[in-house]
Amino acid sequence: MAHIKLEEGLAGIRGPMAFRPETSKPLNELAEVLLRDDKNSLSRGERELIATYVSSLNDCFFCQNAHGAIAGHYLNCDIESIDAIKKDYLHSSISEKLKALLTIAGSVQIGGKQVTVEQVEHAKSLGASDIEIHDTVLIAAAFCMFNRYVDGLATWAPADRQYYVKRAPQRAEEGYLDFDLYK
Amino acid sequence: MAHIKLEEGLAGIRGPMAFRPETSKPLNELAEVLLRDDKNSLSRGERELIATYVSSLNDCFFCQNAHGAIAGHYLNCDIESIDAIKKDYLHSSISEKLKALLTIAGSVQIGGKQVTVEQVEHAKSLGASDIEIHDTVLIAAAFCMFNRYVDGLATWAPADRQYYVKRAPQRAEEGYLDFDLYK
Repeated sequence: MAHIKLEEGLAGIRGPMAFRPETSKPLNELAEVLLRDDKNSLSRGERELIATYVSSLNDCFFCQNAHGAIAGHYLNCDIESIDAIKKDYLHSSISEKLKALLTIAGSVQIGGKQVTVEQVEHAKSLGASDIEIHDTVLIAAAFCMFNRYVDGLATWAPADRQYYVKRAPQRAEEGYLDFDLYK
Repeated sequence: MAHIKLEEGLAGIRGPMAFRPETSKPLNELAEVLLRDDKNSLSRGERELIATYVSSLNDCFFCQNAHGAIAGHYLNCDIESIDAIKKDYLHSSISEKLKALLTIAGSVQIGGKQVTVEQVEHAKSLGASDIEIHDTVLIAAAFCMFNRYVDGLATWAPADRQYYVKRAPQRAEEGYLDFDLYK
């Protein structure tokens, strides 16, 4: 049961979002810009993967499954492939640049000061731009927030992972702005 | 030196905010609602204190000094008193309810699942409302993001703590929305 009285049947972050629309607005806008804005040079799938990886490090079931399913949708791969990347991205088939960015994201998850000059220089040597590095750090930092928000209020989440896979195409289509919390 | 090319002379989060205005907009809106919106039943000073405490746990020099100075401004106390609360809030002169909320914030800083039913029930028994508990969790979670953003990009911050104290009244007056990054 959630720590505060939330509407029943709303999964994960949707409960607190319905509870406090004043904070939901900037939170959704942040997710939209960070994960979907096409001015960013990382693909939507890559950005969802960074969000998924950090959520797995933070052990947030709802976020890693919701965003993992959306990452799988964009990257045309199944949930088992996403699981394999989360567990051992260095030996997965993702690009070397994305591996370097996931290493930076993993450092941010522990703490901002864990990001090293060497990690950043390595990512740059593989073609990562300043905006890509900025967005990697901010996506990782933002999911350290979203994960704590979802779990810090002890929200409910469907245990069936197919729930998230089935909804991923619609989530990818609609985005994070002004979406219907009840659909 | 920052990990990416940021404008020189902008302290802390202002460098990345000038670098990426698209993400600054929702970040500033989130800070404004969480820390200043008067519909919230915690005072602005109490909310700034939660932000300061979490920033001190995350060892973020810029955030704990910027928000610590603003908390001191609202609460009419000097920086040494804020330091004493950060170090040992349980034996400080803040209210028992705020102590219970800082305990919840401290759990969120470690991870969302660290918040216990007992911590929440204790806060409620001291008068904390569901909105106050929600906002405490989200302020703590949001500063786990802001702190990682500031330190994950290795931003520059003035070492002189009086810098922050001097600017606190203006920051409190102007708020976080549409403020001039160069003032």
